[in-house]
Amino acid sequence: MIELHPLPGIPEIESGADLAAEIMAGCERAALHLTDGDIVVVTHKIVSKAEGRTVRVLTDADYRAVIAEEAVDIIRRRGDLVITRTRHGFVCANAAVDRSNTPEGVAVLLPVDPDGSAHNLRLALERATGAKLGVLITDTFGRAWRRGQTDVAIGMSGVIAVLDLRGTTDTEGRELMATEVAVADELAGAADLVMGKATAVPVAIVRGANLLGEGRGDDLVRDPQEDLFL
Amino acid sequence: MIELHPLPGIPEIESGADLAAEIMAGCERAALHLTDGDIVVVTHKIVSKAEGRTVRVLTDADYRAVIAEEAVDIIRRRGDLVITRTRHGFVCANAAVDRSNTPEGVAVLLPVDPDGSAHNLRLALERATGAKLGVLITDTFGRAWRRGQTDVAIGMSGVIAVLDLRGTTDTEGRELMATEVAVADELAGAADLVMGKATAVPVAIVRGANLLGEGRGDDLVRDPQEDLFL
Repeated sequence: MIELHPLPGIPEIESGADLAAEIMAGCERAALHLTDGDIVVVTHKIVSKAEGRTVRVLTDADYRAVIAEEAVDIIRRRGDLVITRTRHGFVCANAAVDRSNTPEGVAVLLPVDPDGSAHNLRLALERATGAKLGVLITDTFGRAWRRGQTDVAIGMSGVIAVLDLRGTTDTEGRELMATEVAVADELAGAADLVMGKATAVPVAIVRGANLLGEGRGDDLVRDPQEDLFL
Repeated sequence: MIELHPLPGIPEIESGADLAAEIMAGCERAALHLTDGDIVVVTHKIVSKAEGRTVRVLTDADYRAVIAEEAVDIIRRRGDLVITRTRHGFVCANAAVDRSNTPEGVAVLLPVDPDGSAHNLRLALERATGAKLGVLITDTFGRAWRRGQTDVAIGMSGVIAVLDLRGTTDTEGRELMATEVAVADELAGAADLVMGKATAVPVAIVRGANLLGEGRGDDLVRDPQEDLFL
């Protein structure tokens, strides 16, 4: 069985905040003791805020300028919405520059190095708990072909990104067709189910997934050259 | 908290099998009593097998012919792999015709009407349990831009497909940016985390998600005309 626990009550995060301490306090409030194998899923927004990755955005022109700075490539444009590739390689709307759930006049950018942010947070949480943990940093992306957004993993530490089943055989002894499972994205989406959007719970704990490992956000970025879906 | 329960021990499903009875037996073995709000997630493969949606595929040429029959549109082609649109509107590899985890020489097609299949299964399970349930039928799809496959919802009954937060405001009172959450796909991916691929557990129970409602597989198909990601 896998358990998905929301961690409510995390206060508004300011630049320089100690995220690990806030998460430990949240666990204490929820009477949840982090143990070996737990994966701490954190929306990038509070990571970015803690790291000071916010900018003043007073007008729509400001917003467009910030997006242009954050994007290395514009894939599509329609009206105010642009589909972009960020410098991390992520393809998403508006270079992931976010004005919702932020103070007025402030936009939140992606962390510069989401894997590094996850790594630091994991070390701090492991130090505080003595447990072997994973940390996943998420954002909410739209997709091609399918309606609606889902949460996906943009950075991680101590978690498998893509479970590689190539060479694995099925119950009849034949090689499996679906051979690379994007478990980090499935974890991110699962965690979103207890985080909610309007309720703004920025942290969830996934217990029992058995997916600790050595993934990176990069593992989930498909080389456009080999992307048959385009 | 949300719980994800695998339902192991479901036997090989033959055409005409009583899926609801198999799931009830699985719940009994797992000492799991279905209760109001539970969502029963079922990989399409056992639904299709029970409905006789299998074909003889002895050669690669047979396989290609079946794919051509199941696809209404070929989006891309490279070697043996084609990206197709199925008659349901789903964009996926090889028209979702699947030769893994099937008896030799047999390929499994998608159900003709996945929502209808989910509806029938839900009614049978609700009759057997007296509980108000949801049923989700899933398949494993690749995505544009991102590596790895994830499980997604292809049919459902009694479950919300897309949670519409348009008009909802954030904690600061502004409209949310990510306004349509594909919760059925997040549920499918979450369930996949306990189903596994090689282990071939075809059913999972999601408890505590609070997502019963009136969705359809169609709700997750984006109109290509409005698909900025393409």
